[in-house]
Amino acid sequence: MQTDEQAIRNLVDIWLAAAARGDVATMLNLLADDVLFMVPGKEPFGKEQFAAANQQMKNLKVQGKAEVLEIKVLGDWAWMRNRLRVTMTLPQGETVNHLGYVLTILRKNTAGAWQIHRDANLLMPERS
Amino acid sequence: MQTDEQAIRNLVDIWLAAAARGDVATMLNLLADDVLFMVPGKEPFGKEQFAAANQQMKNLKVQGKAEVLEIKVLGDWAWMRNRLRVTMTLPQGETVNHLGYVLTILRKNTAGAWQIHRDANLLMPERS
Repeated sequence: MQTDEQAIRNLVDIWLAAAARGDVATMLNLLADDVLFMVPGKEPFGKEQFAAANQQMKNLKVQGKAEVLEIKVLGDWAWMRNRLRVTMTLPQGETVNHLGYVLTILRKNTAGAWQIHRDANLLMPERS
Repeated sequence: MQTDEQAIRNLVDIWLAAAARGDVATMLNLLADDVLFMVPGKEPFGKEQFAAANQQMKNLKVQGKAEVLEIKVLGDWAWMRNRLRVTMTLPQGETVNHLGYVLTILRKNTAGAWQIHRDANLLMPERS
């Protein structure tokens, strides 16, 4: 039986693999219905808007690499801090790198699966 | 006896009042020794660097206004989501506004006082 921390690390791996192959359904499964994403300079957005944005990015190749820095499990809740690099390859082959830190609140759902509940994403374009 | 949620709301009020009068000592008291601040485009920084940065900002007037959107207490831990507007008045009288959301992890210390443990600050300059 895997620990909660292992389950959360698995979630990160499954998320990045799903993002890489454009598998939005798997990503949505890892989100609480009332999830809120926060990024600099925008209003927070939820599951529906996340799905719509990913639909529009379908012809981008998104390669993410996460370094899990901290996981703290608190019963059915947890918080996690990651360092994340995301490389997006545009249809013309040009690549754009984003790099930074993410602070995430997770919650175990009634089925016992961890899901993303709040996500503060501080990634910025990487200076070359 | 005040609830944990009230204590955390008080912390926000005390923090903003201390920031407004440049009272760094009071702000440092509200920080866990191993606190980490995260802002877009920078490496995370701790208590010492926070103190140094505030020392340099001594001749700025910093007026912050927070709207507490969510507080979730989990025993001796809590997370909080705020909408924050910070107005900085430069020595020449010019003002700069920053606006955005903050996701904060708090922890109750051994003395029973809530302190900031992790802080993801997504504020960006406000478009006028």
